[in-house]
Amino acid sequence: METLWSQRFALRTRRMQSSAVRELLKLTEKPDLISFAGGLPAPEVFPLAQFREAAECVLTQSGPQSLQYSTTEGCYALREMIARHAARYGIVVQPENILITSGSQQALDLLGKVFVNSGDRIAVERPTYLGALQAWNAYQAQFLGIGMDDEGMRTDELESVLRSGPKFLYALPNFQNPTGVTMSLKRRAVLIEMADHYGVPIIEDDPYGQLRYEGEHLPSLAVMDARARDSKPLSGNVIYLSTFSKTLAPGLRLAWVVAPVEVIQKLVQAKQGTDLHTGTFVQLVAYELARGGFLDKHVQYIRSVYGARRDAILAALAQHMPAGVRWTKPQGGLFIWAILPEHLDATDILREAIEERVAFVPGSPFYDDGSGKNTMRLNFSNATPEKIEEGIARLGAVVRRALERQPEMAPQQAATGK
Amino acid sequence: METLWSQRFALRTRRMQSSAVRELLKLTEKPDLISFAGGLPAPEVFPLAQFREAAECVLTQSGPQSLQYSTTEGCYALREMIARHAARYGIVVQPENILITSGSQQALDLLGKVFVNSGDRIAVERPTYLGALQAWNAYQAQFLGIGMDDEGMRTDELESVLRSGPKFLYALPNFQNPTGVTMSLKRRAVLIEMADHYGVPIIEDDPYGQLRYEGEHLPSLAVMDARARDSKPLSGNVIYLSTFSKTLAPGLRLAWVVAPVEVIQKLVQAKQGTDLHTGTFVQLVAYELARGGFLDKHVQYIRSVYGARRDAILAALAQHMPAGVRWTKPQGGLFIWAILPEHLDATDILREAIEERVAFVPGSPFYDDGSGKNTMRLNFSNATPEKIEEGIARLGAVVRRALERQPEMAPQQAATGK
Repeated sequence: METLWSQRFALRTRRMQSSAVRELLKLTEKPDLISFAGGLPAPEVFPLAQFREAAECVLTQSGPQSLQYSTTEGCYALREMIARHAARYGIVVQPENILITSGSQQALDLLGKVFVNSGDRIAVERPTYLGALQAWNAYQAQFLGIGMDDEGMRTDELESVLRSGPKFLYALPNFQNPTGVTMSLKRRAVLIEMADHYGVPIIEDDPYGQLRYEGEHLPSLAVMDARARDSKPLSGNVIYLSTFSKTLAPGLRLAWVVAPVEVIQKLVQAKQGTDLHTGTFVQLVAYELARGGFLDKHVQYIRSVYGARRDAILAALAQHMPAGVRWTKPQGGLFIWAILPEHLDATDILREAIEERVAFVPGSPFYDDGSGKNTMRLNFSNATPEKIEEGIARLGAVVRRALERQPEMAPQQAATGK
Repeated sequence: METLWSQRFALRTRRMQSSAVRELLKLTEKPDLISFAGGLPAPEVFPLAQFREAAECVLTQSGPQSLQYSTTEGCYALREMIARHAARYGIVVQPENILITSGSQQALDLLGKVFVNSGDRIAVERPTYLGALQAWNAYQAQFLGIGMDDEGMRTDELESVLRSGPKFLYALPNFQNPTGVTMSLKRRAVLIEMADHYGVPIIEDDPYGQLRYEGEHLPSLAVMDARARDSKPLSGNVIYLSTFSKTLAPGLRLAWVVAPVEVIQKLVQAKQGTDLHTGTFVQLVAYELARGGFLDKHVQYIRSVYGARRDAILAALAQHMPAGVRWTKPQGGLFIWAILPEHLDATDILREAIEERVAFVPGSPFYDDGSGKNTMRLNFSNATPEKIEEGIARLGAVVRRALERQPEMAPQQAATGK
């Protein structure tokens, strides 16, 4: 229906489209459907009893303050705790370097608001986190994609992008969403050196860093940048983002930005006009849950649960996927990335998969240039190992049928058919 | 300290300034200071026992779902309840017309994101809610101010503004923040008719509508617009905003937009990139608190408490303010607006007031054109009647001394001195 508002949408709003994939994924609500689509934590790991205790404790001990307006920067005790925790990983900062945000998505939005002019170019991994593309599309950014392989961002493609002078570079070095790939130590060193050389600052998004199931923790870009400059972390190049969504619960909408004070001050001014502040009550509940050491133990527990699920999905993929399909072997995080033979379209596969009661997210929306039609993101944190085995068996059968219907084209056909 | 980020702030960021007033108000944390500055509800009215019960109930009954990701639109049951509640006031809508936001401030931000291009003109009351100016400044809006008197927006200034074709008009018809003034029924009718004539849509912000302490409820602009068009509400001209911040608790950050479906859809797309969704847990807690009828009784209780405080501040002003100071007599809401003799500057008064352990917000930041130097906003919901009496006595003494030092200039001096 037309209203007076219909003709008044801003130019940027034209970029906001409900995608075909989103419409398809609305069909995944069937009770017997096994979904690898979301980025959802396992509901059975949420510490409900501890949440009940923490909520009771906050309302009793902090009383009315827990329900009142609070500062835009976020609860000071929570910021102190985050600073202490960051120091364990070598990120030495003060509470004044930390802003609490309403989920990491808000951190991306505020960074867009504070830094991105219409037409600014942002260097991103190709593929990259869809939510970052959405957030910065709203500020009419342009994207410069840098290809990925098993070691992360391809440094041979990096220099030409950095030389062209993007506003900043955005990277997810640990168990990247969507690919599950971790940037190698060598690539991290090259990135830091080259970004410094060309004067391009970095936003490091690290929602999954603590969810490592094998191998050694790698130093964050923020830490490596600080070491390279022989200076305190966050005196310079790297803004670091993390969140409670994957360790505690996403329904709280609690995350944080670590940045130089001048950046935090601008983000605070932007946040004042955006949502005043993040909820007081949930900040205090998260603080109460984390301060006594419970969160550390809980993260260990999550690691064991998700590690087993990763093993289950890797085993199921090996068993059920037909030849010609490849996938990543993540050392942590929530996602596996599967690459179909090039002539298959993952959106077509999804349509058929939903009929067979299994779902995933096609990879194309994660590409700034709309490529990656033959890729798919598989989440392994939400379903149990038994469901994972069953779901991948269903998906494998769908892919196999598609391949039988459309066998790989001969090289000549493939070249002309592209 | 300079970093690589220092030279990279977006153009819009230059408009985000930490104001002198904000710096002054940081000094109001002294324990014995009586503050009329914030817009804070009284902490002693927060229903802590009911919150404890509701949190326990949600975590027990909804379990993990209460901590999981949820839809961008907001919890359906909560939206149904809001729709039923709106119907009592004549706003007949479906849950599909409602978007849950992280406070009304986020509603203002999302409306800016979806509708405002750089340079667009927005018609506002002069003065108007500071947070709306902040939200839309970030989208580089221009403002067209319409003067206010005791009946609200001056309709004699309205026509030339509407004729000039602003993108939309923003109004707070009930107990306006900052002035406390309510738009009369006659003015509402003129506004609706004229906005329809010139094809200018309206955003109606109504955080305080339920907090009326005397007089009859007036129909909202959304309802009057629908009646004038002989159509269903929200088929057209008016987007309506309200919030749980003043009736339940601001620390939850829960509010809502009522709008035509096409607008809700665009706001949802914008919200996906902004913060994914509003917290699941707090939405369910608010629903649990409100669904059994508790919220209605609670609002009656708040009315009695705040009504007494309004009486207390009006009595105290009459007793302690020197001649030459005028103020509004609000029928509801949280604020009184005081107008000093024109040659006094409220920011100077604030500096002196803080020394005397009393604070308020100078009115100038609420003016789109920076005028109103001699005005001040006084909140009466946060302090007890005893504190209000004491605080206004202190403030009255400060104003009296300022007037003694700077007696009103003779008319001729005033004219040249302006």
